[in-house]
Amino acid sequence: MKQETATKSFGGTQGVYSHSSKACDCDMRFAVFMPPADTHGPGPYPALYWLSGLTCTEDNFITKAGAQRVAAELGLVIVAPDTSPRGERVPDDPDGAYDFGLGAGFYLDATEEPWSKHYKMYSYLTGELPALIEKEFPVDGNRCGIFGHSMGGHGALTIHLKNPDKFKTCSAFSPIVAPGEVPWGRKAFSNYLGTDETKWVAYDATALVAKNPGPADILIDQGTADQFLEEQLQPARFAAACQASGQSLTLRMQDGYDHSYYFIASFMEDHLRWHHER
Amino acid sequence: MKQETATKSFGGTQGVYSHSSKACDCDMRFAVFMPPADTHGPGPYPALYWLSGLTCTEDNFITKAGAQRVAAELGLVIVAPDTSPRGERVPDDPDGAYDFGLGAGFYLDATEEPWSKHYKMYSYLTGELPALIEKEFPVDGNRCGIFGHSMGGHGALTIHLKNPDKFKTCSAFSPIVAPGEVPWGRKAFSNYLGTDETKWVAYDATALVAKNPGPADILIDQGTADQFLEEQLQPARFAAACQASGQSLTLRMQDGYDHSYYFIASFMEDHLRWHHER
Repeated sequence: MKQETATKSFGGTQGVYSHSSKACDCDMRFAVFMPPADTHGPGPYPALYWLSGLTCTEDNFITKAGAQRVAAELGLVIVAPDTSPRGERVPDDPDGAYDFGLGAGFYLDATEEPWSKHYKMYSYLTGELPALIEKEFPVDGNRCGIFGHSMGGHGALTIHLKNPDKFKTCSAFSPIVAPGEVPWGRKAFSNYLGTDETKWVAYDATALVAKNPGPADILIDQGTADQFLEEQLQPARFAAACQASGQSLTLRMQDGYDHSYYFIASFMEDHLRWHHER
Repeated sequence: MKQETATKSFGGTQGVYSHSSKACDCDMRFAVFMPPADTHGPGPYPALYWLSGLTCTEDNFITKAGAQRVAAELGLVIVAPDTSPRGERVPDDPDGAYDFGLGAGFYLDATEEPWSKHYKMYSYLTGELPALIEKEFPVDGNRCGIFGHSMGGHGALTIHLKNPDKFKTCSAFSPIVAPGEVPWGRKAFSNYLGTDETKWVAYDATALVAKNPGPADILIDQGTADQFLEEQLQPARFAAACQASGQSLTLRMQDGYDHSYYFIASFMEDHLRWHHER
């Protein structure tokens, strides 16, 4: 692991790191915020994993979400990985579209060529990355949660529902909740996983929660002025599945907010305190 | 004036606007954060003008500084203009350097060709822009302050010292305080104002405060790990001039912080409350 940058922020340290990932077979970057040791001691600390949305890297969250202030107060580590494998050898959308390929890994393990060699974000996030984090940083692997935005909300929901003992708490901003039913997800899944839709349910939060509700109360914030709400997000699908299966869900429709980091920043403090209390 | 974007943020609205500027003889963009009317009423509100540093546009502050949360709480409008004139007709540094020309207007009125046609940021900020803001938004022109970062800290200090009745409060993050004595300022001033250095003192905070200290207590935060501290910033020059002239100054050296928006965000709340209390 190599430290790329380390910047003081709210008394703590916002770092960016790179390493050679076995799961993704390429160099990967991720960001880690460490709270101030002089107020919180040497750790180990609880940690939250943040999964970003389409087109993002590890940089968007750390510059725009305004999470460091409250994380420093609460003594939380926040890990923000990249959204896909990267590098010259990693194939991208043949048309360079924003919603598939680089910046759009969808937090799954691809099974189809040519994507399956590098697009292993699910294995990376549930195995290799937490192991590296717990080895290199004073993080308590038994007190981890996960949250994210849009495509990263989909990632957070599915990874929590499949690994509730590892990622014990879960929240999301404007998540994709039923990827098999919306254009972003159908494009990505048909390429990464193939056209047999029975294989898609392993990465579909609405399908997963219908069978295996998790133990945590899930928090979702969704802006009513979100330009992707009706076509791509449709949180009511997830809410209905939660109600049917007994999954505890707090879905808050936030009047007038859109899909941007202005929305995320406005409710970031709520989410950090939500995870911390649990 | 044209509204380019309007995004809900912490209950208020973060807008970006454009207009045809007479002072700069080009189209100019600026950002305005309006606090939530449902908690603060219809106004008029006090306003703070934020001046950004080299390479920035109106976008850096509104995405990275995390100011909206506290501005929404306090009922403050924040106006963040661009850092230079823009457009195809506006000349740039012949080598495309980051520290002169586009993104580097230095908040002065250029007198030398070819810069003098468009580079009139001082007139723009002290005349045209506040007049437009007070016409188009519920802003109280008698309750305005100014603050900024680096080159924008230089702008805030000089504009406050020359216009203390208009911009009544002033603070800065890692400002250029003696442009005539450091490489950034000497390059810009010799091009914009010519080689007669007696003309430079009109835009030199350390020279200005030696003659005309202002009524307000000025707040400056400076990171000790700032890579530009020794060569370009040198706040001790300004502190010495303030002490000699009786200018009230609160200079805080912040241990371990650098020149970035991570530093700015860490102390943004302090600055907003500082202005609001005054």
